[in-house]
Amino acid sequence: MDEFSFIKSIQQGSYRQPSVIHGIGDDAAVFRLHNQDVVTAKDMVVENVHFARNTMEPYHIGYKALAANLSDIAAMGAKPAYYLVAISIPNNWSMEEIKMIYIGMNDLAQQYHVDLIGGDTVSGTELVISITVIGFVGKDKVRLRSHAKEDDIVFVTETLGDSQAGFYILNHSGKYIEEDYFIRRHQLPSPRVEFSLALHPIVRLCLNDISDGIGSEANEIAEASQVSILIEEERLPVHHNLKQFEDSLQYKWKLFGGEDYELIGTVSKKDWDQVQAIAEQLHIRVTKIGLVTSKSATAEVYLKSKNGRIERLDKKGYNHLSR
Amino acid sequence: MDEFSFIKSIQQGSYRQPSVIHGIGDDAAVFRLHNQDVVTAKDMVVENVHFARNTMEPYHIGYKALAANLSDIAAMGAKPAYYLVAISIPNNWSMEEIKMIYIGMNDLAQQYHVDLIGGDTVSGTELVISITVIGFVGKDKVRLRSHAKEDDIVFVTETLGDSQAGFYILNHSGKYIEEDYFIRRHQLPSPRVEFSLALHPIVRLCLNDISDGIGSEANEIAEASQVSILIEEERLPVHHNLKQFEDSLQYKWKLFGGEDYELIGTVSKKDWDQVQAIAEQLHIRVTKIGLVTSKSATAEVYLKSKNGRIERLDKKGYNHLSR
Repeated sequence: MDEFSFIKSIQQGSYRQPSVIHGIGDDAAVFRLHNQDVVTAKDMVVENVHFARNTMEPYHIGYKALAANLSDIAAMGAKPAYYLVAISIPNNWSMEEIKMIYIGMNDLAQQYHVDLIGGDTVSGTELVISITVIGFVGKDKVRLRSHAKEDDIVFVTETLGDSQAGFYILNHSGKYIEEDYFIRRHQLPSPRVEFSLALHPIVRLCLNDISDGIGSEANEIAEASQVSILIEEERLPVHHNLKQFEDSLQYKWKLFGGEDYELIGTVSKKDWDQVQAIAEQLHIRVTKIGLVTSKSATAEVYLKSKNGRIERLDKKGYNHLSR
Repeated sequence: MDEFSFIKSIQQGSYRQPSVIHGIGDDAAVFRLHNQDVVTAKDMVVENVHFARNTMEPYHIGYKALAANLSDIAAMGAKPAYYLVAISIPNNWSMEEIKMIYIGMNDLAQQYHVDLIGGDTVSGTELVISITVIGFVGKDKVRLRSHAKEDDIVFVTETLGDSQAGFYILNHSGKYIEEDYFIRRHQLPSPRVEFSLALHPIVRLCLNDISDGIGSEANEIAEASQVSILIEEERLPVHHNLKQFEDSLQYKWKLFGGEDYELIGTVSKKDWDQVQAIAEQLHIRVTKIGLVTSKSATAEVYLKSKNGRIERLDKKGYNHLSR
């Protein structure tokens, strides 16, 4: 298969978004929007850094790469509309496997009516995928990390650490309870797009998606909003079968385990009931995990442990460039 | 330097585009536009496939990678506004070298008032850069490959093959006339943004940028517009000092030499004078190289050689996935 026929093979037959004016097939794609702000994010994943073939099928790789990007758009309170994919393909990947990556992306894209409108295919010595996602949001309705305020309730969606538990199961053969659940959470994460959009009636809300673990994401909110945050370990929501793993693993995964793609947010106490009601309607679990304690230029995040001790919780997310 | 301080170091102090609402620093960037269409393109370059350190300084790598993307936006008749950069960094590149890549991009971006609004930095085993560029264009004013019509004049900007000549000089030590010129054309190409924007008064125009050689680009126009095109070899504009190279090299470079980032276009005969006048005002050379000869579903491109023979000119562009 040459580049031209490959590009034809991954093109959608039609576009789901009426706002697409020209999709794939020219120097650039064209779209039109009405009276909305545009939100855009871009990321890159590399084989054997972000994923490995022994734990992820090509389909999962595509699905999850797009899920991570849709999660960024959800964390802005925006509705994802399009994505562009650049891929560098090494010789040891077959074109059938590469196509499965695109099928994984397309299956997720279909759920959210998101269109593939462009990209690039090149050759290299390792598989690298870069996705750009574009979404829309009402004017000035974007949910920023800087929107947290003193006395806000800090919450997260669903449960934390599942993705790392799934990754652990895939790498350590053995018997596990509900292993399919944890593996699925690792390979096929669900971006919280509907929940984020349903929160629309709430005027002020701070949102961040959990890609590097809540330790890291809570610190990003604290820094951007210039506040201090107190998180209570006891309140951190975990799946009831996470307890089959060693305590130290549970602790690491729920606080620093990345790739859950859940949302962490803060909201004023008066709006917390509404957040809970919206979550209930969508059958999304939402849990209060702490409070924004004070305006603070030092922007610290504290963790109150189960034993009552309060300590600084630092980023400890995966930092790609530390040398 | 860790990821966080690196991202801080490449952030612009302020944004050139008033339409940027939030740049780098959250899950996604946000922008707002008024009554215009949005154009977006994305590409990827890989070390030792698209560039090598022995012929390109880090500064050139960044400059040229962005130039290629701005050229795509120019080929749509649009005004570039923002770019996002994802980069995978191997261990054998220092952070100072990586910073020079961003400085190269920023110097070009500054010329066009284009803003870096997002991206990603990850680690890998080879240097990979993916740029997404976003531009604006008046509603329905986009210049598509499908806009060519029978009897149109086919033209190109400036001269062809210079980039490949520069690449040749960099790889074959020796004495060359105007070697700085050719090397500059290879390392620091100029996207034809101003020219494309100045063509705005012309209602119908077909544009494509020359990244893979005019053989390839003319075929793309023929296919998209369902027309046949005749190009006359004699008319192809080359630099007067290209003649210092072997005839066979000149021939290959002007027809199939990629990376010139000039524009190939077609325009009705009645508008050709205006195209020339606009080019003259901007001190851009523009040359008629042939004609759109007929409506044709077979979409063929022919080359009339200097000896008068007419033959099919096929794509022969660099095809990344041919195996």
